[in-house]
Amino acid sequence: MSENPASLLETFDNQFPQRDYVIEIICPEFTSVCPKTGQPDFGTLTFTYTPDQKCVELKSLKMYLQSFRNQGIFYENITNSILNDLVAALEPRRMKLVASFTPRGGISTNVTVVHEK
Amino acid sequence: MSENPASLLETFDNQFPQRDYVIEIICPEFTSVCPKTGQPDFGTLTFTYTPDQKCVELKSLKMYLQSFRNQGIFYENITNSILNDLVAALEPRRMKLVASFTPRGGISTNVTVVHEK
Amino acid sequence: MSENPASLLETFDNQFPQRDYVIEIICPEFTSVCPKTGQPDFGTLTFTYTPDQKCVELKSLKMYLQSFRNQGIFYENITNSILNDLVAALEPRRMKLVASFTPRGGISTNVTVVHEK
Amino acid sequence: MSENPASLLETFDNQFPQRDYVIEIICPEFTSVCPKTGQPDFGTLTFTYTPDQKCVELKSLKMYLQSFRNQGIFYENITNSILNDLVAALEPRRMKLVASFTPRGGISTNVTVVHEK
Amino acid sequence: MSENPASLLETFDNQFPQRDYVIEIICPEFTSVCPKTGQPDFGTLTFTYTPDQKCVELKSLKMYLQSFRNQGIFYENITNSILNDLVAALEPRRMKLVASFTPRGGISTNVTVVHEK
Amino acid sequence: MSENPASLLETFDNQFPQRDYVIEIICPEFTSVCPKTGQPDFGTLTFTYTPDQKCVELKSLKMYLQSFRNQGIFYENITNSILNDLVAALEPRRMKLVASFTPRGGISTNVTVVHEK
Amino acid sequence: MSENPASLLETFDNQFPQRDYVIEIICPEFTSVCPKTGQPDFGTLTFTYTPDQKCVELKSLKMYLQSFRNQGIFYENITNSILNDLVAALEPRRMKLVASFTPRGGISTNVTVVHEK
Amino acid sequence: MSENPASLLETFDNQFPQRDYVIEIICPEFTSVCPKTGQPDFGTLTFTYTPDQKCVELKSLKMYLQSFRNQGIFYENITNSILNDLVAALEPRRMKLVASFTPRGGISTNVTVVHEK
Amino acid sequence: MSENPASLLETFDNQFPQRDYVIEIICPEFTSVCPKTGQPDFGTLTFTYTPDQKCVELKSLKMYLQSFRNQGIFYENITNSILNDLVAALEPRRMKLVASFTPRGGISTNVTVVHEK
Amino acid sequence: MSENPASLLETFDNQFPQRDYVIEIICPEFTSVCPKTGQPDFGTLTFTYTPDQKCVELKSLKMYLQSFRNQGIFYENITNSILNDLVAALEPRRMKLVASFTPRGGISTNVTVVHEK
Repeated sequence: MSENPASLLETFDNQFPQRDYVIEIICPEFTSVCPKTGQPDFGTLTFTYTPDQKCVELKSLKMYLQSFRNQGIFYENITNSILNDLVAALEPRRMKLVASFTPRGGISTNVTVVHEK
Repeated sequence: MSENPASLLETFDNQFPQRDYVIEIICPEFTSVCPKTGQPDFGTLTFTYTPDQKCVELKSLKMYLQSFRNQGIFYENITNSILNDLVAALEPRRMKLVASFTPRGGISTNVTVVHEK
Repeated sequence: MSENPASLLETFDNQFPQRDYVIEIICPEFTSVCPKTGQPDFGTLTFTYTPDQKCVELKSLKMYLQSFRNQGIFYENITNSILNDLVAALEPRRMKLVASFTPRGGISTNVTVVHEK
Repeated sequence: MSENPASLLETFDNQFPQRDYVIEIICPEFTSVCPKTGQPDFGTLTFTYTPDQKCVELKSLKMYLQSFRNQGIFYENITNSILNDLVAALEPRRMKLVASFTPRGGISTNVTVVHEK
Repeated sequence: MSENPASLLETFDNQFPQRDYVIEIICPEFTSVCPKTGQPDFGTLTFTYTPDQKCVELKSLKMYLQSFRNQGIFYENITNSILNDLVAALEPRRMKLVASFTPRGGISTNVTVVHEK
Repeated sequence: MSENPASLLETFDNQFPQRDYVIEIICPEFTSVCPKTGQPDFGTLTFTYTPDQKCVELKSLKMYLQSFRNQGIFYENITNSILNDLVAALEPRRMKLVASFTPRGGISTNVTVVHEK
Repeated sequence: MSENPASLLETFDNQFPQRDYVIEIICPEFTSVCPKTGQPDFGTLTFTYTPDQKCVELKSLKMYLQSFRNQGIFYENITNSILNDLVAALEPRRMKLVASFTPRGGISTNVTVVHEK
Repeated sequence: MSENPASLLETFDNQFPQRDYVIEIICPEFTSVCPKTGQPDFGTLTFTYTPDQKCVELKSLKMYLQSFRNQGIFYENITNSILNDLVAALEPRRMKLVASFTPRGGISTNVTVVHEK
Repeated sequence: MSENPASLLETFDNQFPQRDYVIEIICPEFTSVCPKTGQPDFGTLTFTYTPDQKCVELKSLKMYLQSFRNQGIFYENITNSILNDLVAALEPRRMKLVASFTPRGGISTNVTVVHEK
Repeated sequence: MSENPASLLETFDNQFPQRDYVIEIICPEFTSVCPKTGQPDFGTLTFTYTPDQKCVELKSLKMYLQSFRNQGIFYENITNSILNDLVAALEPRRMKLVASFTPRGGISTNVTVVHEK
């Protein structure tokens, strides 16, 4: 993984900053690696945010998420770290990230993290 | 696209203005063109509004939405601009527009915009 | 259609008027005629009400809804007029009517009307 | 039907009375007889309650519900009477009963009754 | 079953204690034995909690739940006892456990228990 | 149960006997009683037949099936006996009966019986 | 109903008669009247045919099916008669019609009729 | 596990041996133990058979399947061995067993075994 | 539309011509224009083919299908013409095209065309 | 990727070689890289085979499939090559592999390859 994957995130100007509105982005093809077992993890990341001055550019978000492909990282860290990176890049009015991981050992895990400005 | 597609929108008189009620209109056949790639985009637009004095005539709404067929426009602009056009034509008590676009590069986007009188 | 279809509605006494409770009645076989095109419309009507002294008798409700079979009437009028007829007949504590019509020209419409005593 | 079917209901002591928690019991095999037509009715009863000192024993609940098998009784009476019997037997902190009956003449009916201590 | 199955539960440090967030863990392969009939019970346990200083380690949770495999225990006890064990081990800010059991005699049961710090 | 429930079955003349065609009748509200446990059984009966000279009248089929409501009879007997009664009454070119019973003890049973003229 | 509704059916020339191919037309908004009870019936008609020299024009098929709206006719007659009318108008290589009617008295009926040239 | 779990299987006489018919039995609550990892496995077993002189008694089948609860056995052995035991006990005209196991490491396995007399 | 849209189709060499295998390509975003009404049509095209020496390059297929975006063409022509273009470009061992169009006037149409070498 | 990923595949002896039976293995977490765009691809691989003397060990199959994680390879090559590797390792009586890939540019692709001994 590159030193600072968050630098991959690009933004464009929100053309409607006077309005409070919601953008939901669903990424069902997230994959990373479990740091304990070395086995790949798979999940769906759903971002829901109200932009302030900036919106995230979708292709750059895809490249950013792909930077986790071969990185060893736990579920809770994935969710909190990615939210933190997006919040730093977008400074949104509010943002929620729900990460739903596929079953391991018959057990599924979903992590939900919220940022309020 | 014609100079002013909003002029395609026609209205009829709300026969029950003394009552606060809700009309939901689901348009699953919206298509426009991505201004960056030139590729067509596809989505479902769902309007939910409380009419004041005017309701939107459905056939005119269909013609209005078809005026975007070959227009290059981004997701956020589609949703905000169409809401603005409808609000200008109908002056509703409140109106919500949810635009759900089909996946691109494995990523789906929904935009939700609300107008309160 | 008969002069006054609302006269078809029959009621029976609510045996539990001291309790606030909810009756939901789902009628997926509603059909009327579009006054503009002369084409039949089809929809599902869902009534949700809290009875006061009277409940609607189901067979009479069916006959009442069938009186619209060959009547030309718009979506908004269907929903508001039927709610008004039911409210007049039942004097319920509250009543909601959701009318969901099948797609026309690729567009579906749902109308939701609420009465509060 | 026996004189007093409610006597079939048995309870056991709630082992966790200091905690407010919820038990949901779903009975999709309820059947009784329509008193007007003599035809059988079918429905799903869903009980949701917060026990106080007593919980309902499931096998006794099944026997109690079976006592309605050949009894002529209307939808509203089924729902209100069964809730009353359960409330009398359990004295719960709160209890909701939703009864969903299968379509008759193309029309489905659901009745929802709530008891608060 | 071992004397104290709760000792099987292991935790790791919550790396984001300054943030209120939610972890949902879905375990569809729970099984125990009915103490009255000796027959196996099957259910899905869904934990939803906000960690404080500790998160539950998933493999240890699996081993803990497996310790009930041949234990005779009623639905209400399963749900309340397991919540109590998790609360003792994790001291979460809040935790909910929903246990959904498969039908017995045509009747399904769900138990929902909540702990607030 | 009446002595000879099959006498309840009524037929009407097939108006299209020169054509081989198929009538499927789905009856999801069948109920009888288990002769061993005395508990009610519930199932869906699906008849698929090619009429020869006679078709079954639907209301009489309903009354015939209701005659099993309080009769003690095993799954295999239900399916074979009912097929035999229908075959005797209709003399169809061919007939299939699929009986799907709801779970008991976590186990569901379907029985499929076919008659060829 | 008009004297000869089949005269409503219009055809257009099959542009690809040298190829055996299949056209499926699904009409979920069929309604007629039960001649015994006078109550409306509702169903979905699905036509599957291989055209020879002629294809059915869809708008004319819709008008033809609407001619049954207030006609009293039994399920088996609907299906056989409509197939006969279509076969007479189109002379297809083969045609199947499946008519699926909504439940009456808890019982659903599907009729399947096939024509081979 | 008992020495010879197949001895748990009981049969009753097929009352309709002159007819070739099919009994399907669906058991979604099968569980055993993986001999390699010691972890529990879960699956659905679906039996489909044509009885000759004997049918399997359902309660005895349940007890027989429960005898695998704490036994270490691989997927292929489960399916083949259970089919063999049933075939020995019932001598059916034909029998199929489909065993569908829940995912392990993101991979699901189904095994299908058929016996023809 | 360009003069000869079929020229947009590009192929690549089948690396496994010694094996008969099947490629299925599902294109849910097809749109063209009805030549009679001028209204847009929408459908899903599903290609299923066994390649001989050539496979279709997916991006070129997308561009080819987009060439129909503003072309007036009937359902049957779409399906037969597109199959013909693909067959000419790929010379497959066999190819099937199923085109499923969204409802118009409450009626859906699917066209299935097959080519055998 | 290692030089020879097929060497990762391990087998165990089929304990029931005298019987023709079917093992289906569903792997929904396959991922590789598109050699043209460098973007990750995602798909579900479903193996269906009749073992002869050898069965594939599931954990080794998982490791083998993971060896494609960062390899650039086209859909058709994935499916044919993986089938070839499995056939070489298992020498099955017959084997089918269906590979279903997620949409790219609004288009989904499934490839089905069959080997017969």
